[in-house]
Amino acid sequence: MPLDNPSDNIRKFKLVGTRPDRQDGFDKVTGRAKFGADAVAPGQLVGRILRSPHAHARIKNIDTSKAEKLAGVKAVVTRADFPDKTDGDSGLFDILTNIMARDKALYEGHTVAAVAAVSAAVAKQALKLIKVDYEILPHVTDVDEAMKPNAPVLHPKLFTEGLPEKPKKPSNVARRYEFGHGDVEDGFAKADIIVERSFKTEATHQGYIEPHACLANVSPDGSGELWVCTQGHFMVRDYCARLLGLEISKLRVTASEIGGGFGGKTTVFLEPVALALSRKANRPVKLVMSRDEVFKCTGPTSSASIDVKIGVTKDGLITAADATLRYQGGAFPGSPAEFGAMSAFAQYHLDNVRTIAYDVVTNRPKQAAYRAPGAPMANFAVESVIEELAHKVGIEPIDFRIKNAAREGTRSSYGPVYGPIGLLATLEEARKHPHFKAPLGPNQGRGMAAGFWFNFGGQSCVSLNIPVDGTVTISVGSPDIGGSRASMCLMTAEELGIPYGHVRAIIADTSSLGYNDVTDGSRTTFATGMACILAARDAIKKLCQRAAMMWGIPEEAVTWEKGYAKPAGANAGNFPPLSLKEIAAASGATGGPIAGHHEYSADGAGVSFATHICDVEVDPETGAARVVRYTVLQDAGKAVHPSYVEGQFQGGAVQGIGWALNEEYIYGKDGRLQNAGFLDYRIPVCSDLPMIDTKILEIPNPGHPYGVRGVGETSIVPPLAAVANAVSNAVGVRMTELPISPPRLLKALETANLAKAS
Amino acid sequence: MPLDNPSDNIRKFKLVGTRPDRQDGFDKVTGRAKFGADAVAPGQLVGRILRSPHAHARIKNIDTSKAEKLAGVKAVVTRADFPDKTDGDSGLFDILTNIMARDKALYEGHTVAAVAAVSAAVAKQALKLIKVDYEILPHVTDVDEAMKPNAPVLHPKLFTEGLPEKPKKPSNVARRYEFGHGDVEDGFAKADIIVERSFKTEATHQGYIEPHACLANVSPDGSGELWVCTQGHFMVRDYCARLLGLEISKLRVTASEIGGGFGGKTTVFLEPVALALSRKANRPVKLVMSRDEVFKCTGPTSSASIDVKIGVTKDGLITAADATLRYQGGAFPGSPAEFGAMSAFAQYHLDNVRTIAYDVVTNRPKQAAYRAPGAPMANFAVESVIEELAHKVGIEPIDFRIKNAAREGTRSSYGPVYGPIGLLATLEEARKHPHFKAPLGPNQGRGMAAGFWFNFGGQSCVSLNIPVDGTVTISVGSPDIGGSRASMCLMTAEELGIPYGHVRAIIADTSSLGYNDVTDGSRTTFATGMACILAARDAIKKLCQRAAMMWGIPEEAVTWEKGYAKPAGANAGNFPPLSLKEIAAASGATGGPIAGHHEYSADGAGVSFATHICDVEVDPETGAARVVRYTVLQDAGKAVHPSYVEGQFQGGAVQGIGWALNEEYIYGKDGRLQNAGFLDYRIPVCSDLPMIDTKILEIPNPGHPYGVRGVGETSIVPPLAAVANAVSNAVGVRMTELPISPPRLLKALETANLAKAS
Repeated sequence: MPLDNPSDNIRKFKLVGTRPDRQDGFDKVTGRAKFGADAVAPGQLVGRILRSPHAHARIKNIDTSKAEKLAGVKAVVTRADFPDKTDGDSGLFDILTNIMARDKALYEGHTVAAVAAVSAAVAKQALKLIKVDYEILPHVTDVDEAMKPNAPVLHPKLFTEGLPEKPKKPSNVARRYEFGHGDVEDGFAKADIIVERSFKTEATHQGYIEPHACLANVSPDGSGELWVCTQGHFMVRDYCARLLGLEISKLRVTASEIGGGFGGKTTVFLEPVALALSRKANRPVKLVMSRDEVFKCTGPTSSASIDVKIGVTKDGLITAADATLRYQGGAFPGSPAEFGAMSAFAQYHLDNVRTIAYDVVTNRPKQAAYRAPGAPMANFAVESVIEELAHKVGIEPIDFRIKNAAREGTRSSYGPVYGPIGLLATLEEARKHPHFKAPLGPNQGRGMAAGFWFNFGGQSCVSLNIPVDGTVTISVGSPDIGGSRASMCLMTAEELGIPYGHVRAIIADTSSLGYNDVTDGSRTTFATGMACILAARDAIKKLCQRAAMMWGIPEEAVTWEKGYAKPAGANAGNFPPLSLKEIAAASGATGGPIAGHHEYSADGAGVSFATHICDVEVDPETGAARVVRYTVLQDAGKAVHPSYVEGQFQGGAVQGIGWALNEEYIYGKDGRLQNAGFLDYRIPVCSDLPMIDTKILEIPNPGHPYGVRGVGETSIVPPLAAVANAVSNAVGVRMTELPISPPRLLKALETANLAKAS
Repeated sequence: MPLDNPSDNIRKFKLVGTRPDRQDGFDKVTGRAKFGADAVAPGQLVGRILRSPHAHARIKNIDTSKAEKLAGVKAVVTRADFPDKTDGDSGLFDILTNIMARDKALYEGHTVAAVAAVSAAVAKQALKLIKVDYEILPHVTDVDEAMKPNAPVLHPKLFTEGLPEKPKKPSNVARRYEFGHGDVEDGFAKADIIVERSFKTEATHQGYIEPHACLANVSPDGSGELWVCTQGHFMVRDYCARLLGLEISKLRVTASEIGGGFGGKTTVFLEPVALALSRKANRPVKLVMSRDEVFKCTGPTSSASIDVKIGVTKDGLITAADATLRYQGGAFPGSPAEFGAMSAFAQYHLDNVRTIAYDVVTNRPKQAAYRAPGAPMANFAVESVIEELAHKVGIEPIDFRIKNAAREGTRSSYGPVYGPIGLLATLEEARKHPHFKAPLGPNQGRGMAAGFWFNFGGQSCVSLNIPVDGTVTISVGSPDIGGSRASMCLMTAEELGIPYGHVRAIIADTSSLGYNDVTDGSRTTFATGMACILAARDAIKKLCQRAAMMWGIPEEAVTWEKGYAKPAGANAGNFPPLSLKEIAAASGATGGPIAGHHEYSADGAGVSFATHICDVEVDPETGAARVVRYTVLQDAGKAVHPSYVEGQFQGGAVQGIGWALNEEYIYGKDGRLQNAGFLDYRIPVCSDLPMIDTKILEIPNPGHPYGVRGVGETSIVPPLAAVANAVSNAVGVRMTELPISPPRLLKALETANLAKAS
């Protein structure tokens, strides 16, 4: 039950909040589950992609004639096979240009051509036979460098949007955003103490286990089928149809099981290319990325450069907060600079606040979403300054945060006024937590941070069908990236009043169900889950109609209670209750199959907050920082399946720890990625980590019938700052650049020692 | 437009009645379509079945130990793996016993054991290592022999049902049926002429091109997936779940494309065995029948023995009609004797009529449905006697039929009173047809027959979804065995008012949609088609709601007309119409995806009638009869896609011609089938046949919004009699046994010549 909501009177749940086995678990642990590369079609070809070795180059000519003549090659595609059908949609044109380079290769790994052949060996040989005539251009990969006036310009037609007037010259700044309220200058004037710092973070990759993979099969009549590992097969369908000029209903896309996505599988890379190859070869074509391709050619995060300035009174009240964020989103506009700006100060109650953000292009792969996109870097910068301010004012950092925390009624830094939120609850619970009072050893430090994420709603559709044995199938359109099938079944069973094991969920293909937005933005348990509840209510209405028919009474005289239809009211008659199973068994004779449906666009997603506590131990000789204890306290609204909520908390924390300490894209001066593999790109493994402790708080979201908020993303927001604050507290040096890798930490220590010594 | 329905005011159609390409055609002609054997799962095993070589034998012991020890064998199943979970359902117990023999092998080919192994070679070797200890029992395969008091009894617990009192002894007669009205004895007393004859027909096979095939995949948690070639994947799901003790929702069945069914794929054979093997092996298992297995172990038709007696006045009015039908349905009860009895006289207006039918078991494979199951044999017997009576009375056979034809208001021989029906229309159109007046050559004869089929309704579900580009997907649960996807799309597009090409149909799996009855009984275009229309109307309601929202007017003020929402009424306002596409494009902003659904059990299937005219030429030296001209005239109610209606007419006629002239199950004295292959079981091929001429009549079915009746089955009813009448008229000898193969015809000619000579 919610901690900070004593007057809450939400329903008592029978199933929601329990921890049954996930239904997809058996197949996953026995290897039976079918992932992206596991599909087979008779006569399928092997696809391979030719990628630019240059960070920036004009493609003067592509000669595929020799490759086409090679025995066993069935199709070769280049930019010539992707005419522009985007009808002025610049976002879609960027996607088109990203999946197949047009006049220029904009980053190392940019797709230049693709082949489909009878074997991998033939396909590989064919790639070598394609001759591309490049004119190498100067490149830029750093966000600050890219904003300089003399930087190489990627897009001659890109003029900064969001400025008072259109600039005269193109640049790499795609857009400027500004959020805030009050008068920041006035606020700073009232401050007793002001801290102003600059920060930098490097790009990271989602690091999902499963590389992108798909199997495309296009018929001569233009209709097609696609099997694909994705977070959103409806999105894949709509993009591919539009890019290839197909009617949407002619493309049937089926989502495979997914070995991780974390936002990285929310757009298309291989899929339109596979379809184009299949259409040209008139055969099914499978494309599977290598790990090298995943690093170089999918969507890592933005790297960022951020300035934060916060002023406080000597009592510790924030008077003004200002930040400037510069995010590079790779070779195309669309970095999450806007989300960074909106979320940076969202955890505070501020009278005077301003954030300005710039979306910048560089010669890197087009970024994709990564768990709370844009927020972790902004949070790192802001919570680092908050920590420093608390120290300067002389208030415990947690009390400082409590004092300034956003609460119900706060006007958020990005505009809306908050309803009931759980930030204070997580902070107060953190203060009480044993972790907070545990002693620290030598070379250890403790840090904390509070973080925020919006959580999304969006379009979801659910169909629910009831076979004659009274078990239930639910057909949902949200790929299950974190155990959502279990949550959907729990909510459906709860609503119908039947056992969890009687409900079975499938991920329907795009021809079987209405459109579903991508599984992202922590939207699925909230929005698709609510669609399950509403589809169940639709089915309950029909179950009551059938019971009324069986009893010969008006349908208004029947109510549903805990899995049974019951006569309601004095005049309804005296009939023993009919179970769902009994009504289902009679359905053939009472009008046919019983179903429930719901299609909608969900509003009312509740924002969520988390407080993280982190202890690190630093090795002063090597500069290696190690997390030795970590606690996540987060508001889930209502934890439908607490194990998976805890799993989301832990997973987000671990990914954030990796981002803070080790993970980074390392570019050479040639603009090429130097660490495109898990040996050189260091993701934390089990032996690097303590068990992540979790505490679920439940402050119900009034926008959901069960109080559910999204939980998947907020947990990656605070770790960057929590870890950096812990390290900074351990070594007495403020770390302003991520990752805090051993060389970087050693260097900071040496600089600090030099400063002390001098 | 209907010929015989001048007052008909059904709607003018824009698309229904046109002949666009079928959407599945491209994939079928290019080999891309996936049939039963085309599915592949990672790690799949090869299944093979051990079958009884004996027609009737007690199975004393099965020793699988050696087979289990063979390297590469992953599972062996026998009767021990199929405990009885049928809970007293005798029909289901028969299916259980048919898919895996229990105490006895009841026919040659009866499944005794099955193996799953890593290769076909290992599986074959394993079958050889299974030792079955048989005690051979006397057998019976002929229906009349099986009814004799001293016949070997297949089932010691089988006592004839439908008798006034329960018999004292078990027998091979499973059930007696009786239909009729009036006083038959009285009717015969009023007759001037009576003809009484006995007939026999042999069993035939549906002869579908694609053998049965499936791929089963059961998870350790008991849930499973099945890919299968079937006419009804929901039926497969429900049978398999019940036979294996699974919850229905745990089994997800997907229907492959189907290379013919004709009724033969309306039950389970391999599927429960494949699931049991997969469950035991913990691996996917594929089972595919050979052609030999298809003939010996699936469901051919009943062979039949029929007596018919009809009396007429000298004016040619029938005074009484009586028939006794004996159908053997193989080793289990369930022959279509009942349908034979109900349909035998359905085409006549009779005051005094009686049919008695017996369902008999023999040591043959359990029969399955075959296109108008039970009707063709009964029709052969009745229409042969009708022809003979017409000759005796001296009235042209067609005039005789017209005189006695059933019409609107006739009480049918099986009970119900007919609504508007098309029999007279087909007869009168036949009389006018050029075929009827064409001269005949030497050794040629002309025959005709009128036939009837009920047509079914039943349970169907359809979901319709509208992507943002305004094209439409319909998700239906009826496997497409005769072009039904094209008909579904035509009706949906007609109702929505959009082009045919904008609607795309898929056959949904069992977890994506509510229960659908098997594609049989000519029900799909009627019942699932009506569900498409009603789902479209549901979508139209929502489209109008969205238009109302976009205009800001009440939803009652919006109507739908030819693909557009329009303001209706004086106060609705003056807005330009919104197309489906425009409303779909805005759907994300007006509430989310737009869908339509319909689940129901359809009533109102309209009966249908056909008249066939057949010319044959007989070679008196070889006894070979050859059809030289053939015309089908049939009432379709409304032909949704006339090309496929004509195809159904032609296909039924050709299958009936094969049944009449060549096809038969030939059993040796050992009870073994002697012609289990297409070389020895002679199906007519193109070079055997003339082009079948067709004439579609349209007498609307008032039970369907577009007037549709079923068309797939009636067309196989008259050919047996039409061909036999033509041959009899050509040679002057009444042929009473089918097939009229060369040896049988030669023998009849010799007998007749001997009789003339004596």
